[in-house]
Amino acid sequence: MKREGDYYITGPLPETPAPPTEPPPWGETEVVGKPLPRIDAYDRVSGSAVYPSDVVLPDMLYAAVLRCPHAHARARKIDVSRAERMAAVRAVLKDGDPGTDVRWPIGDPDARSRLFDPHCRYEGEAVAAVAAETPYAARDALRAIAVEYDVLPHVSDAMAAIAPGAPAVWEGGNRAGEPQVYERGDLAAGLAAAAVVLEETYETATNLHVPMELHGCVATWDGGRLTVWESSQGVYNVQRELAIAFGLPLTDVRVVGHYVGGGFGSKLSTGKFSVAASLLARKTARPVKLFLSREETQLAVGNRPGNRIRMKAGFRADGTLTGLEMEGWGSGGAYSGDGTGLLDWQVRDLYRCANVRTVRHDVHIHAGDERPMRAPGHPQGSWALEQLLDAAADRLGVDPVELRLRNLAEASQARGGLPYTSNGFRECLTRGAEAFGWKEAREAPRRDGDVVRGVGMAGATWVAGAGRPPSTAIVRYFDDGSVNLNMGASDIGTGTKTVMAMVVAEELGVPPERIRVEHADTATTQFATASGGSKTVPTESPAVRAAAIDCRDQLLRMAADQLDASPSDLALAGDAVVSRSDPSKRVALVELEEFRRRMVVVGVGYRGPNPEDKATCPFAAQFCEVEVDTGTGELRVTRFLGAHDSGRVMNRKTFDNQVYGGIAMGIGFGTTERRVLDAGQTGKMCNLGLHDYKIPTAMDVPVEIASLPVETRDLECNSTGAKGLGEPVTIPTAAAIANAVYHATGIRITETPINTTRLAERLARRDAGRRG
Amino acid sequence: MKREGDYYITGPLPETPAPPTEPPPWGETEVVGKPLPRIDAYDRVSGSAVYPSDVVLPDMLYAAVLRCPHAHARARKIDVSRAERMAAVRAVLKDGDPGTDVRWPIGDPDARSRLFDPHCRYEGEAVAAVAAETPYAARDALRAIAVEYDVLPHVSDAMAAIAPGAPAVWEGGNRAGEPQVYERGDLAAGLAAAAVVLEETYETATNLHVPMELHGCVATWDGGRLTVWESSQGVYNVQRELAIAFGLPLTDVRVVGHYVGGGFGSKLSTGKFSVAASLLARKTARPVKLFLSREETQLAVGNRPGNRIRMKAGFRADGTLTGLEMEGWGSGGAYSGDGTGLLDWQVRDLYRCANVRTVRHDVHIHAGDERPMRAPGHPQGSWALEQLLDAAADRLGVDPVELRLRNLAEASQARGGLPYTSNGFRECLTRGAEAFGWKEAREAPRRDGDVVRGVGMAGATWVAGAGRPPSTAIVRYFDDGSVNLNMGASDIGTGTKTVMAMVVAEELGVPPERIRVEHADTATTQFATASGGSKTVPTESPAVRAAAIDCRDQLLRMAADQLDASPSDLALAGDAVVSRSDPSKRVALVELEEFRRRMVVVGVGYRGPNPEDKATCPFAAQFCEVEVDTGTGELRVTRFLGAHDSGRVMNRKTFDNQVYGGIAMGIGFGTTERRVLDAGQTGKMCNLGLHDYKIPTAMDVPVEIASLPVETRDLECNSTGAKGLGEPVTIPTAAAIANAVYHATGIRITETPINTTRLAERLARRDAGRRG
Repeated sequence: MKREGDYYITGPLPETPAPPTEPPPWGETEVVGKPLPRIDAYDRVSGSAVYPSDVVLPDMLYAAVLRCPHAHARARKIDVSRAERMAAVRAVLKDGDPGTDVRWPIGDPDARSRLFDPHCRYEGEAVAAVAAETPYAARDALRAIAVEYDVLPHVSDAMAAIAPGAPAVWEGGNRAGEPQVYERGDLAAGLAAAAVVLEETYETATNLHVPMELHGCVATWDGGRLTVWESSQGVYNVQRELAIAFGLPLTDVRVVGHYVGGGFGSKLSTGKFSVAASLLARKTARPVKLFLSREETQLAVGNRPGNRIRMKAGFRADGTLTGLEMEGWGSGGAYSGDGTGLLDWQVRDLYRCANVRTVRHDVHIHAGDERPMRAPGHPQGSWALEQLLDAAADRLGVDPVELRLRNLAEASQARGGLPYTSNGFRECLTRGAEAFGWKEAREAPRRDGDVVRGVGMAGATWVAGAGRPPSTAIVRYFDDGSVNLNMGASDIGTGTKTVMAMVVAEELGVPPERIRVEHADTATTQFATASGGSKTVPTESPAVRAAAIDCRDQLLRMAADQLDASPSDLALAGDAVVSRSDPSKRVALVELEEFRRRMVVVGVGYRGPNPEDKATCPFAAQFCEVEVDTGTGELRVTRFLGAHDSGRVMNRKTFDNQVYGGIAMGIGFGTTERRVLDAGQTGKMCNLGLHDYKIPTAMDVPVEIASLPVETRDLECNSTGAKGLGEPVTIPTAAAIANAVYHATGIRITETPINTTRLAERLARRDAGRRG
Repeated sequence: MKREGDYYITGPLPETPAPPTEPPPWGETEVVGKPLPRIDAYDRVSGSAVYPSDVVLPDMLYAAVLRCPHAHARARKIDVSRAERMAAVRAVLKDGDPGTDVRWPIGDPDARSRLFDPHCRYEGEAVAAVAAETPYAARDALRAIAVEYDVLPHVSDAMAAIAPGAPAVWEGGNRAGEPQVYERGDLAAGLAAAAVVLEETYETATNLHVPMELHGCVATWDGGRLTVWESSQGVYNVQRELAIAFGLPLTDVRVVGHYVGGGFGSKLSTGKFSVAASLLARKTARPVKLFLSREETQLAVGNRPGNRIRMKAGFRADGTLTGLEMEGWGSGGAYSGDGTGLLDWQVRDLYRCANVRTVRHDVHIHAGDERPMRAPGHPQGSWALEQLLDAAADRLGVDPVELRLRNLAEASQARGGLPYTSNGFRECLTRGAEAFGWKEAREAPRRDGDVVRGVGMAGATWVAGAGRPPSTAIVRYFDDGSVNLNMGASDIGTGTKTVMAMVVAEELGVPPERIRVEHADTATTQFATASGGSKTVPTESPAVRAAAIDCRDQLLRMAADQLDASPSDLALAGDAVVSRSDPSKRVALVELEEFRRRMVVVGVGYRGPNPEDKATCPFAAQFCEVEVDTGTGELRVTRFLGAHDSGRVMNRKTFDNQVYGGIAMGIGFGTTERRVLDAGQTGKMCNLGLHDYKIPTAMDVPVEIASLPVETRDLECNSTGAKGLGEPVTIPTAAAIANAVYHATGIRITETPINTTRLAERLARRDAGRRG
């Protein structure tokens, strides 16, 4: 029955071993945990690191994208003839041109749009693209394209979009599916049993990711094979999406992203720019570079949805929770239906409560799509939950830390009561409070002239954190004692490469500076899932460790043969193998005949499965101090402490970096950042630049941020014991600030950002009330 | 006893399996052996393949090397000041500048020279180097460097160099070590037992490799890490040598050589140009491209030494050998002592003879160094041995093929009688003669007007051919059925990538066009020894096969779990796994849950050891027909047949390509090529360009070259059964031509090349003798 194209494999099946099993967890470590500077620090700070936006190829063209200037419009006529006649223009692409029939979002079976869809459902939709000899010529050519738009009615606000008579984003209404309901216990009974019931509605502004490096890529074709250098958190995601867009086998799409200048979740998948650049490169048979401007990045490649959150909670007199209710609204933009993703996770899982109900409403509006942003949904949910708890503590006369300690959960309630592999939340609260000097600060004098001072805190958990398979790593140990680590993951600025070098150093005794990491290249490095979800270290480090151990064991077997010893009696000690039972029995690695013959030892490691009957989550408590000038409304965050249980601390320096960065970003969420749409008028974004969209500067971040690792020894989550860190660090920050502002001023600000305008207005209103 | 810097590894040793063992040899194959076009054919012919000489980096400088114009001189004074002041010049390097104290040859403990040694021992020695904004500016700058040379006496000929009073290349005499003697049996007794003893002295000219792509590289530094794109046969050799030159760990030197436009042995190691380019790149902090000119490539990067060979042989009346003697002289140039390497191998091993003695004399002269050139020593030795056998056949009245058949060796005599894993020499002779129509052609009329016709043949073996460990390959099977093969070996134009893709296709049932090969990059691909010695396919293919099998077995294990079957009852059939015992039991690969979860399966394969008690060698017999115009001396090679036992034919098309190319190159060795040194006068090379150094054109190669694979089924050499091919194909060519010329004209030409000048002179001398 052999058919043409089938190649039957016959003959006996050789005995090959199963992949190596997961090694046992570490005990004490020698290298891992130390505060090691990044192995690529010099390259990054000297400018010698080549980011995708630095890539320049011979004969490269520059592309630019024409974008719809209206919140909602239909391009009736697109005339590219003048642009095509321009001297430096090499290609123009618009809807209907060969190759543009790519359904969007790529790979979505319900995709309702395409690459250059003339029906533009948000300001910034791609309408056409050009490739020219210079970036300036490409921008000039955009202005030479004449588009006649039919401007259509728009809606820019989620609550307005579900009101009757709202302009339609999609036929059938602006709701993205039915409301999502989670329920356990009996909420009504829980609230009825409460001594105190509080209810409040909170709002968070839409935030933007604002990566240092803009979104974009360089694309080139070698025959039928596409190579793309992309500023990406996950080169394999981009590979898969481009393969779908172009109908190519995966191995004919090579995506490289050695460095990436920040992503925060906005660079997890392929943008239209990558498809456009690849099409233009194919059309012109030249490499094409297409990087967006800051304005385009603000408009079109993602945001953290703003939410409206109604919270209600009942407490017994001792502060224990009897019922929790949350109702949330949010918009993922014109296409994405994910406006409230994970918004309720903290409500569902962080504190012990038998009676919980959450409802989430996802809405479409005429605005750019969301993309996951550092702990999607969590900071918003925390903003509501942790403020309500703070209000309850105030009402009940219980210390806020104590209130949380009285509501600790023993297991993951949202996962049906699965026990945790480790849970350091109690210690985050107690040790954090101790280290911050919470009690003293809480009772210290609060006024100094016009300036009032207050402290606040908030707790947090993160939905994920154990990492997960698949992950593969390859370690090559050269006979001069230098090591090459091959893994697929991107280092999105978090220090992944450095941490992985430390894992190798731990197992092989090689100094980290002799370890080179090759990564994030779909053609030459191992498969990895995208770097996101705070899972890169817990996902990759066990595979890297297993690969290093595989190398080590091969060296030990070689030494065993040469020394006539048992491998299990041998240990690697620096550049030699020694016998445990007889230390005089040793052989230098350079004297291992088999090693010299092979010149390099190749170790392979795989990530093992997670425990099926346990949950793994990081936990956090953050504490802060603020000063408010009651005359001007100016808010200063003066002091912060992040107490974080993320399992094993892999590198104390990059751990602290994450805490500092997460808190800085949380300060932005809480006090400065919001996307402003001209909702009542044009629906266009009013703050496209960094002058108007305000991220915290060094002056907005306190000089004193303390990082307190609450290092649980998690022996079950994976073989390195690391849990996720990158996202938990930014979850409770804003809520802690709001609570501190309340402590300082007695004013509860329920809407982000707590900026001077808003504070001044509330202070004035209060003072007016007092005067009145 | 723990010391700072030692990282003791403690804790229990996990149970990890030994590397997979070598699979059993193939029986019949489905893909392997077919005439498959090269997978990179389009890229190569379209120009989209990026050879190292095509690499252009942003801000790249161009370098050039100033070379000594004398055969022997000392640079007394080097004034670079004018060059340094030139507007486009960015750096000048000469002896004594930082970084130039690199001992040369790199890594040689007896290195007697250095990078820019002012004592120049051959025309073309590097004296200085410059980097400038353009290649033209760099060449201009060379002319602005003023060097004062003390010109010293030189010697350009090996025999002259060991005559008394010759100018010294080195103190202590011009001999490179003691003569190398090989002896078995009793030569004197053997010759005494002979019915006929023949003696003759042969000479071969020095040949040049003449790769299409010149020697050179592009070098750049990222911080402390060096990356070099080099036109190389072995990126790991270059990595190792540059690491020594710069005192770097191996993993801080990345050498990439995806394509290489020919090497033939001249690109196995690092040239001074790579060190110079790397130094200039470091000094200027910019990428530097340094490719040699054709003239520099002719002068300074290698040659096949010319030899003088005295041969003596005794035969019984039936043609069996009783004794064989060879004495050979040759020069590896000023530095290399390898002027006669492997010159005597055929004498020692190809024909059965109990009494053998060979002596080899290596000599230094003032000329550029040798580098191994396609079957080092073998074509020269064959030139002598096979002509002497031809003369003996003539004298004894035995057919030349028959004479060789009467002297077949049963085992490798030079290896102490080790049996061969396979030996197809007898069939090469008999089937080759049959296919060529040897008997008929030998007896056909030989004259047609002024043109005489003749046929000749020669046999050959090659010293190596089994390949050898180490080799590692990694196969990644993506869940869309496309495959990525990662291996370190260079494809030096022989079709290695295509053959390896076929090996993967054989085991996985994936069409070869869905297989992408990543190779020849020390940072991202597996370790491989250099592509040379006709060992690339036999070395790499078993590792590639093992890696593919590892993938296959993982898929079968996944299917076994899902189908509740035993892996050994399952087989891969195209894009599904089926049960051997119950074909209705099947699962498509895309439906394998574990495969979908992992998204890619990673297989690792290693090259197993060779059998210890056997020898593996390829064998060959070549047959040709020539025409000589007795009026003009013009020689035309009209017909050729190569019968080759190289074990399994991996790809019939690339197999034939090798035969055609090897014969073309042998025609050059035999009839057109010689390096001409102005020995009596300046010692300088007279034919630096391809106008004067004549390689065969299409007009010099017969239209009809037949390739006859004598496919031994070698089950012991390695798991794919492939033996080396690239070198054997060029060994007997020139001797076969000389024998054909003798058959046509009765004139025995003992010196290469048999060109028109030489033939016309000999024909005239013979005719003058006849007339006299």
